[in-house]
Amino acid sequence: MLGAIEAGGTKFVCAVGDQNGKVADRIQIPTTIPGETIPKVIDFFKPYSMDAIGIGSFGPIDVNRESPTYGHIMSTPKPGWKDYPLVQTLKNAFGVPIGFHTDVNAAALGEATYGAAEGLDSCLYITVGTGIGAGAIVQGQLLQGHSHPEMGHILVKRHPEDPYQGRCPYHGDCLEGLAAGPAIEERWSEKGIHLADREEVWKLEGYYIAQALMQYILILSPKKIILGGGVMNQKQVFPHIYQYLEKFLKDYVPLPELSEYIVSPALGNDAGITGSLLLAHQALTEKSGR
Amino acid sequence: MLGAIEAGGTKFVCAVGDQNGKVADRIQIPTTIPGETIPKVIDFFKPYSMDAIGIGSFGPIDVNRESPTYGHIMSTPKPGWKDYPLVQTLKNAFGVPIGFHTDVNAAALGEATYGAAEGLDSCLYITVGTGIGAGAIVQGQLLQGHSHPEMGHILVKRHPEDPYQGRCPYHGDCLEGLAAGPAIEERWSEKGIHLADREEVWKLEGYYIAQALMQYILILSPKKIILGGGVMNQKQVFPHIYQYLEKFLKDYVPLPELSEYIVSPALGNDAGITGSLLLAHQALTEKSGR
Repeated sequence: MLGAIEAGGTKFVCAVGDQNGKVADRIQIPTTIPGETIPKVIDFFKPYSMDAIGIGSFGPIDVNRESPTYGHIMSTPKPGWKDYPLVQTLKNAFGVPIGFHTDVNAAALGEATYGAAEGLDSCLYITVGTGIGAGAIVQGQLLQGHSHPEMGHILVKRHPEDPYQGRCPYHGDCLEGLAAGPAIEERWSEKGIHLADREEVWKLEGYYIAQALMQYILILSPKKIILGGGVMNQKQVFPHIYQYLEKFLKDYVPLPELSEYIVSPALGNDAGITGSLLLAHQALTEKSGR
Repeated sequence: MLGAIEAGGTKFVCAVGDQNGKVADRIQIPTTIPGETIPKVIDFFKPYSMDAIGIGSFGPIDVNRESPTYGHIMSTPKPGWKDYPLVQTLKNAFGVPIGFHTDVNAAALGEATYGAAEGLDSCLYITVGTGIGAGAIVQGQLLQGHSHPEMGHILVKRHPEDPYQGRCPYHGDCLEGLAAGPAIEERWSEKGIHLADREEVWKLEGYYIAQALMQYILILSPKKIILGGGVMNQKQVFPHIYQYLEKFLKDYVPLPELSEYIVSPALGNDAGITGSLLLAHQALTEKSGR
């Protein structure tokens, strides 16, 4: 049996299933402190005969296998989780291979295998919610280099008529600081979900997301772009993204029809957990040398 | 014998050599029109018994092997070269496997194999000269997706005290429009090479290059960044790049010491031709299934 953990800042989704993404059982556990959350995670998997576990985790995380802190959650402000050895703890509990990537890389893998980018060796998965993050498949592999990408914090040009200063504690008006859910709420003094019919809100959101997509396209040239996360449930933002992206790119690179190129996740909220099952399967096949 | 062509907008550098990057003979041919340039290229290789040829080409080029225009130079303004079938022409002339990538991808391959990123499976090679372009090795492979990257045209924030409008014919004040050699010359009414002692010139250049590096790092997380091209021969720009990058990134991602992370090419002007020899070798081993 394969195990999957989508480790998020507000909840851990745990599931058991197979490499086809079929889930046999699942549970949600609130993310409080490790001493509370992790024993419940372990209890969930205990009854099953586990072969491997895949984790898609909130970050930043250490994904460098040569590093002494491989498998740790790094400098998060979440109490108790800074430097927490997530991979080692689960390895100790179950003694099985553990796959470990960012939550967004897991979602990218899920969508590239069974979702909107099925059959492609390249895609970009972006989530716009409480924060902004992105994972990518590049020539069939999860993108990773010196560390994992942090695409949510790229610089964007402020809209000349947007007086909002941004709220990223690190960068102020980076992409996440200007365009994640909390920024929308603070700028317009109302939650995004209550702003659905305010066109100016989604036009401005489209302005920032399109800028980010321009950078991602020019740098990575993905074969498909998938936009998930709570904010992207406001589908009225998509036409604004297409319009601004055309305006910014000026036909400089050949792209497919934008409405087919930049899409919603086909797996909905299950992209991450599906990808985590696939990470478990990868860890297992790596281990057995298959 | 392996052949290498560094196909540039002003000259074609052709060489014969081996997979260790050792060059036995080389020639430079001015890039005029294909009918003049290409016969000279063919004449150079004719005396040798060629096994494969690697090409690092100016672009945009079609690198998609499934495309009917694979191996063509695409929409260049250079007279005669638009839609020119470079790969097919050489294949017809020599009947050997042809490797084909962008000039900057070839340079990245050269530097990752025998240069500043030797032994690393990940690096970014950026050239800042008449234009700005970048190639990358990601997990051991040359970066390519829907098409090849066009990293020189990313958006940057204009410096608040820089009144210069930019000169990219597509995007106006994109990175290339603001920071390539011709932009420096137009902004300061003098060639960069005569501005060596004007600190404000290189501080502003560092401001734009650092912004670009921030985006590349957050999106690709390369293990080494190599800055080549004529403008980067002005070494006084490097300290400004380090300073601004620290200011922009705010320690958000863990990086090596910047003066070791962001460096000049170890192969100097030979990165491209070395990489093109390696592309020839790749094409040969692919062909023979080794």
